[in-house]
Amino acid sequence: MHATAILLAAGLGTRMKSRHPKAAHKLAGRPMLRHLIESCGVVFDQIVVVVGPDMQELEAIASPHAVVVQQERLGTAHAALQAAGLFGDGDVAVLYADNPLITPDTLRRLVETRRDGATRLALLAMRPADPGRYGRVVQQDGEVERIVEWADASEAERAIPLCNAGVLCAAAADFEPWLRAVRNDNARGEYYLTDVVALAAASGGIVRAVEASEAELRGINSRAELAEGEAAIQQRLRRAAMDAGATLVAPETVFLSADTVLAPDVVVQPHVVFGPGVSVGAGSEIRAFSHLEGCIVGEGAQIGPYARLRPGTHVGDAAHVGNFVELKAADLGAGAKANHLSYIGDASIGAGSNIGAGTITCNYDGVFKHRTEIGARAFIGSNSILVAPVRIGDGALTAAGSVITNDVEADALALGRARQVNKPGQASMLREKLARETKVRDQKKHGETG
Amino acid sequence: MHATAILLAAGLGTRMKSRHPKAAHKLAGRPMLRHLIESCGVVFDQIVVVVGPDMQELEAIASPHAVVVQQERLGTAHAALQAAGLFGDGDVAVLYADNPLITPDTLRRLVETRRDGATRLALLAMRPADPGRYGRVVQQDGEVERIVEWADASEAERAIPLCNAGVLCAAAADFEPWLRAVRNDNARGEYYLTDVVALAAASGGIVRAVEASEAELRGINSRAELAEGEAAIQQRLRRAAMDAGATLVAPETVFLSADTVLAPDVVVQPHVVFGPGVSVGAGSEIRAFSHLEGCIVGEGAQIGPYARLRPGTHVGDAAHVGNFVELKAADLGAGAKANHLSYIGDASIGAGSNIGAGTITCNYDGVFKHRTEIGARAFIGSNSILVAPVRIGDGALTAAGSVITNDVEADALALGRARQVNKPGQASMLREKLARETKVRDQKKHGETG
Amino acid sequence: MHATAILLAAGLGTRMKSRHPKAAHKLAGRPMLRHLIESCGVVFDQIVVVVGPDMQELEAIASPHAVVVQQERLGTAHAALQAAGLFGDGDVAVLYADNPLITPDTLRRLVETRRDGATRLALLAMRPADPGRYGRVVQQDGEVERIVEWADASEAERAIPLCNAGVLCAAAADFEPWLRAVRNDNARGEYYLTDVVALAAASGGIVRAVEASEAELRGINSRAELAEGEAAIQQRLRRAAMDAGATLVAPETVFLSADTVLAPDVVVQPHVVFGPGVSVGAGSEIRAFSHLEGCIVGEGAQIGPYARLRPGTHVGDAAHVGNFVELKAADLGAGAKANHLSYIGDASIGAGSNIGAGTITCNYDGVFKHRTEIGARAFIGSNSILVAPVRIGDGALTAAGSVITNDVEADALALGRARQVNKPGQASMLREKLARETKVRDQKKHGETG
Repeated sequence: MHATAILLAAGLGTRMKSRHPKAAHKLAGRPMLRHLIESCGVVFDQIVVVVGPDMQELEAIASPHAVVVQQERLGTAHAALQAAGLFGDGDVAVLYADNPLITPDTLRRLVETRRDGATRLALLAMRPADPGRYGRVVQQDGEVERIVEWADASEAERAIPLCNAGVLCAAAADFEPWLRAVRNDNARGEYYLTDVVALAAASGGIVRAVEASEAELRGINSRAELAEGEAAIQQRLRRAAMDAGATLVAPETVFLSADTVLAPDVVVQPHVVFGPGVSVGAGSEIRAFSHLEGCIVGEGAQIGPYARLRPGTHVGDAAHVGNFVELKAADLGAGAKANHLSYIGDASIGAGSNIGAGTITCNYDGVFKHRTEIGARAFIGSNSILVAPVRIGDGALTAAGSVITNDVEADALALGRARQVNKPGQASMLREKLARETKVRDQKKHGETG
Repeated sequence: MHATAILLAAGLGTRMKSRHPKAAHKLAGRPMLRHLIESCGVVFDQIVVVVGPDMQELEAIASPHAVVVQQERLGTAHAALQAAGLFGDGDVAVLYADNPLITPDTLRRLVETRRDGATRLALLAMRPADPGRYGRVVQQDGEVERIVEWADASEAERAIPLCNAGVLCAAAADFEPWLRAVRNDNARGEYYLTDVVALAAASGGIVRAVEASEAELRGINSRAELAEGEAAIQQRLRRAAMDAGATLVAPETVFLSADTVLAPDVVVQPHVVFGPGVSVGAGSEIRAFSHLEGCIVGEGAQIGPYARLRPGTHVGDAAHVGNFVELKAADLGAGAKANHLSYIGDASIGAGSNIGAGTITCNYDGVFKHRTEIGARAFIGSNSILVAPVRIGDGALTAAGSVITNDVEADALALGRARQVNKPGQASMLREKLARETKVRDQKKHGETG
Repeated sequence: MHATAILLAAGLGTRMKSRHPKAAHKLAGRPMLRHLIESCGVVFDQIVVVVGPDMQELEAIASPHAVVVQQERLGTAHAALQAAGLFGDGDVAVLYADNPLITPDTLRRLVETRRDGATRLALLAMRPADPGRYGRVVQQDGEVERIVEWADASEAERAIPLCNAGVLCAAAADFEPWLRAVRNDNARGEYYLTDVVALAAASGGIVRAVEASEAELRGINSRAELAEGEAAIQQRLRRAAMDAGATLVAPETVFLSADTVLAPDVVVQPHVVFGPGVSVGAGSEIRAFSHLEGCIVGEGAQIGPYARLRPGTHVGDAAHVGNFVELKAADLGAGAKANHLSYIGDASIGAGSNIGAGTITCNYDGVFKHRTEIGARAFIGSNSILVAPVRIGDGALTAAGSVITNDVEADALALGRARQVNKPGQASMLREKLARETKVRDQKKHGETG
């Protein structure tokens, strides 16, 4: 049977104090709306996103899914109704973009519960540590009788631990008429989605609650809650990485992306950041203060400390990338080493080559990017400047401090530096000159203030 | 009415195991004594600091406020009495430099309570999670009857949750005679400030307690407590930054200063340190492992990862500062970029200019610092060395690896590097030579051990 | 009396998902087995490690202690029995390599309890927050009656908070026959060490429990538990460093090794990693994002931010090491400075010398490492390349951007760089050329897609 998810993302999120819509704020580097879309994609056949006016940013995030604009903010039921034309003929669930931590498993249980026997409406509920002013779910014999808002609840009802999370699922054929029947005769004059529960119950249908954890259903409405959400996601990711056989020496200082892949026996030292698109092979060590994104690291490699691997980088097996080294769109061959203070961009480096300290590839002429190609077992002397496009052959050697503008054939030695000249006694003379100038300056100062 | 704060800072703080006086230890980069002075400055007209002998370090911190030296350590009442000549004719509050987290709001409530009706003495009290051996505040009908020290307290008194924080406020005309009346007939032979409470009550005056949180009134007597105090301050600062609209992806890894200003939609990635004097404009991103102090960052700028901005730096709107780049007293124009492995000190860089990887300004000749001035839309080739004082005109270009000692006019190309020479086969020859030397070395070693 | 510790390290640790034996995984940079060996070394005269087949990695860690291989995994009693030939004639304790946090103090209490009066067997026990399915220690009048496994325990027995930690100590003369008497008539067909308790009791001997904290006795069986163990050790080390008089501004972000020595008034800023073998002198400051291992830092020095000190480095009193600077086997004299973007390896630098930004020692010719020796008060210009072996005399000066291949005598000035040439208008010409090429490229692209 067909299932459609309607994601309500029209909220302004004023508590965020942001120029961006709330649902565009990021968790683990990915917009909240996108998190929800990914989870829904596992369970639903179709996804429709309801945004407010002037939210092109969300439309781009939602793409290629259908987007409907709620022109006036008249409440959540009104928002859901904007998508009615796209409900299809199966089931419809309505979710909120500020609940981005919900899992596919929970969504699946929601839809399955709806489809179970005579259930006409399924809703998500939770038992928060502090239930506060959440609406309470009043049940009888395992069926939901009604949702009672905190303001209207009796003391006995307020003691109910089960709280409404706001997410609903019903057959499209039911959902649309219920939404149209919701009224706005309340203090704020809004159409509330929650009223659908009473309408479903009044229609004689069975309503059931599906429970999930507070961690999963929590709403994110402020930057502080965003940080809490991030912490929750990081905890999940770190735990999964450790369960899969990676050592995180200090997991609380390591930041992962949803797609980070760490093979068994990878060791991650404290203070490491993994941006999206990183895969690290078995037995490699990522040392402190390293920052990786969009790169593949082979097996038994040593990265860092202070290594920055940028997108398009591939580090071969047993290769070493050391401190203050940046690799961008670079292919570092097996066993090759770039250990100190280097920038290697748009380059390929053959197996077993050694890149000296301070080496820089000049890959950018102000308009175009050019490639540097270094063969196997080459030795690039310290502080070499490789002006791309340029090729260095297998086994070639560049002298320390050389500017390499032309290709170097295999096994050749390339030099491009000035000869040293020593001038005896001149350092002393310079110092004396500076001392005299200092004296003059000081005299001037005293003159000024005197 | 006039109000004077007497800050007792004569404590040695032996648990600190330090050569510095306790009150000189820092929280959020600022001495504890200074924190208290800042808070008192909001509420009091005059501040007097009581230090011990040989505490010049504190006198400097207290400046320009009055400092009185307690020559002998005879107790807190004796310490306060040293400042009696400066009490003035209004109210006097006595505080402790090792309670640096107290807020202006609490101080204001203390003084206002003193001035409310017939109150002759107001004191600060708290309800600690673990009241331990604190003195308890015995109250009757909203008035303080007495402070009972833990050692002297009955079981019933020990059950009182309200504890004495030690801070007192009274009219100067009362305070001085009470202090003089305090006796030292106790086990340690000291004059205790707390005894003033009994004297005030005995004089028939009304004594009232002003409550504040334990977090605010906690004392800092060891390095571990210093770290707890730092954590408390950081938590306050992080929360305030998020409430004002900045995203701190992992607030627990971001360290702020009391004066850090982050505009709305600033995003701070994990592992960032803000020293004093930093302001960041809207929409800028501060990436991981960045360290900023004394600098202004415009709007929409990208800083880091691994960027170090030092005092006197101004980064223009939409400018980029990349990895392993240090800026000191540097002005980076709008849209300009310094993305890799550079040191830019005492320099100004025009809008839209690009600073190549490995660029270094030689601003120091061993005695003086000199300036580097780069115009707009200039292109500084990788590994350029700019020997200041030097000017590079608008649109000028320096070739990679050049040492620039003379000015470069606008739109000119400057080169200062040697030509490359290739020597075919020499790399192989060098390798063979090294192999022979290795063999000789190995033979020697075997000879030595054999 | 002689005492022998038998350390059982044959466990595969399948939950680790590792190619390495469980006991080889590291805490605070040191294998778990090694932690236990260090603690046992304080109390026991002899240490014997029982490993499984193909665990050469553990044999190397255990060295020089005796290692016995348990060829078949037939249970813990069987494992202990493999070492019977080495029990000696005093007491024998059997411990587990996955309990690496146990302290010498606890081990001493275990042995002393065994030797106290008529006790024939002493065992370690704990009271975990969640006793879960641990075996319970049934006691009567201060003596252990028996250990009851959770599966066999009555409700009353399950309510006992005291749990068996598995560690036993008995006289060698008792232990061996008891071990031989253990039977394997249980579900898994294994010989369990725990059965020795019943045998000891059955023999009429007194059995006593020695209690220790759960933190100390916890087992480490997964990467998540490894991370928890690391956190526990780091907390101990941080607390000890603060108690000894160092300021850790944010202890939760500082990682110490077991042998880190921080003198009083050392200040450690957030985000610092100390590898093994570091000692820092009084009053020095270690700034954020620094990484130190195997080095000695004098008094009043400034290290970092972003300083990397590698093994064999000695930083003199009041010396400065700044950002993006790597020192390896380097001796930096008193008051000397290396503040920016440098690699200094296999070098000695005299007192008061200044190393300019971007300086690199070329210490490696592809086969051998060579030394750079710089005298006192020398001034190494920015981006100098020092090709070792090379000596720079006292007070000498190298011009910025020089490649120094020959020795420089005292007070001499050395230059090794090309002269600058300016080519008016050529930057504009280059830009126009690039613009034309861009146009051509764009036309081609349109052609391709059109």
